[in-house]
Amino acid sequence: MGFLKDKALAAIGELMVNKIPFNRHIGLEFDSVSDDLCVIKFAMKPELVGNYFQGILHGGVTSASLDMVGGTMAAVGVLNDNPATHLAKLKEKLTKLSTIDIRVDYLRPGKGETFYAKARLLRTGSKIAVVRMELVNEKGTQIAVATGTYLVG
Amino acid sequence: MGFLKDKALAAIGELMVNKIPFNRHIGLEFDSVSDDLCVIKFAMKPELVGNYFQGILHGGVTSASLDMVGGTMAAVGVLNDNPATHLAKLKEKLTKLSTIDIRVDYLRPGKGETFYAKARLLRTGSKIAVVRMELVNEKGTQIAVATGTYLVG
Amino acid sequence: MGFLKDKALAAIGELMVNKIPFNRHIGLEFDSVSDDLCVIKFAMKPELVGNYFQGILHGGVTSASLDMVGGTMAAVGVLNDNPATHLAKLKEKLTKLSTIDIRVDYLRPGKGETFYAKARLLRTGSKIAVVRMELVNEKGTQIAVATGTYLVG
Amino acid sequence: MGFLKDKALAAIGELMVNKIPFNRHIGLEFDSVSDDLCVIKFAMKPELVGNYFQGILHGGVTSASLDMVGGTMAAVGVLNDNPATHLAKLKEKLTKLSTIDIRVDYLRPGKGETFYAKARLLRTGSKIAVVRMELVNEKGTQIAVATGTYLVG
Repeated sequence: MGFLKDKALAAIGELMVNKIPFNRHIGLEFDSVSDDLCVIKFAMKPELVGNYFQGILHGGVTSASLDMVGGTMAAVGVLNDNPATHLAKLKEKLTKLSTIDIRVDYLRPGKGETFYAKARLLRTGSKIAVVRMELVNEKGTQIAVATGTYLVG
Repeated sequence: MGFLKDKALAAIGELMVNKIPFNRHIGLEFDSVSDDLCVIKFAMKPELVGNYFQGILHGGVTSASLDMVGGTMAAVGVLNDNPATHLAKLKEKLTKLSTIDIRVDYLRPGKGETFYAKARLLRTGSKIAVVRMELVNEKGTQIAVATGTYLVG
Repeated sequence: MGFLKDKALAAIGELMVNKIPFNRHIGLEFDSVSDDLCVIKFAMKPELVGNYFQGILHGGVTSASLDMVGGTMAAVGVLNDNPATHLAKLKEKLTKLSTIDIRVDYLRPGKGETFYAKARLLRTGSKIAVVRMELVNEKGTQIAVATGTYLVG
Repeated sequence: MGFLKDKALAAIGELMVNKIPFNRHIGLEFDSVSDDLCVIKFAMKPELVGNYFQGILHGGVTSASLDMVGGTMAAVGVLNDNPATHLAKLKEKLTKLSTIDIRVDYLRPGKGETFYAKARLLRTGSKIAVVRMELVNEKGTQIAVATGTYLVG
């Protein structure tokens, strides 16, 4: 089982993050995932700037990365609820997973070179998952936090 | 006064939307603004896709455009509160304007060719502005709604 | 059908609002409901005061009344999706209806003699309903707005 | 200084929680406060029931207690930013403190005998404070979490 599950987890990273056109466009990359933490990373680039006077990250990149990592964590919750599910069926379930709503709190200016969007499950069920997310830079400064509700079934 | 204000409103569109690197990267364009409505538009493009099975808009583009139009409307609120303010001073105020928090509700799949992000002020004061936003496609289908709180002073 | 539906709508008002102990404790009363608007009302009373220097409504009363009217509107959505459902079955569905999350924006001080909490559906489906709410006083002043997500199936 | 600050902290508990009419009406009591955690408690009572079939806490009580403890924590942030402030002046500041917006996520049914609403500061500044809250029962079960933004200056 462990081997299949690892394969499924890796598949989630590929399907939910790396293969999505917009994620590539802004540079989001799947970093790591476990049963209780999912991480996506991306590098600062000139085209991600929102405030050119201060050279800080656009709030839209912050919210996009947080929504993305939250959805990926919700997918892990789906997997954990159905560990024996065949990969093909999991894929089908994941393509239907969607964000219901998200709240983002912008705490500090988005300064940094590398950013990490992290997610942890607050609750998961047969229909919805509630996830907490945060964005930190390479120094560990917390730039934003978020809470998202996802439709999983 | 009317002429100066029109100039200031146009300046807000340039400063807050068109000149921002990330907005150019994803194709957000200032459309129109009045005292009670601000509109930003963008075209569907392959790189904005979030769900490649269904070819729909990435939720991150939705939230980025909603945050952007909300902040622009908040800027208009700042301008309306200080109509006689010199443009240079307004610019300074706008560079400090920031999103405190935003909630986005994803109502329907982001299908369409052209999207319009619209914002209306709920409340504006000397310190914060509260704005309601919505994203519609060219047929008027409501794809998402949002509420944002902005620090304006 | 019309008669049965009216009966069901009235039953929703009784079951979801008037019979609930906490609603009685603070004085929430079912006012009216139609397919697209639900209204709950309550009178200002000394025990609902939150800021005794200014004699204004406690924010907790505001959020409780908004959550309540949002849930009732979500119940109407359930009824409209299942118009032929027997009342007994509807009752069972309603006892399972629950709030997933809610955002409340406090716009103006809660001053007034009578308050009206109003709700309108943004989206309804087989699993969740998204509802917009507002609290106004007897003069129509908007005190707060809210958006809530409800589990309906 | 320590003595004066302790006195101020106790004053916050009295002013912000125990003396407020609505808090008395539903039984909210100030429990404890430190620089990084504020706790309010209340006992289950028949008049706080929201779902009489299951005998669980009304969501409005949940959100009211979470908003209350969040505002109290924001007040502690104000105090910490101005430790030398005279109590009279602090009182004046606190009467102006208000909730801008709050999001509540209802995670589990509100079952229990005693409930604890806890708050921790995410960010505090001269104008706004962002606070995270949670409601747990006497067994430590997490019933709800919340994030609130407060106007503090």
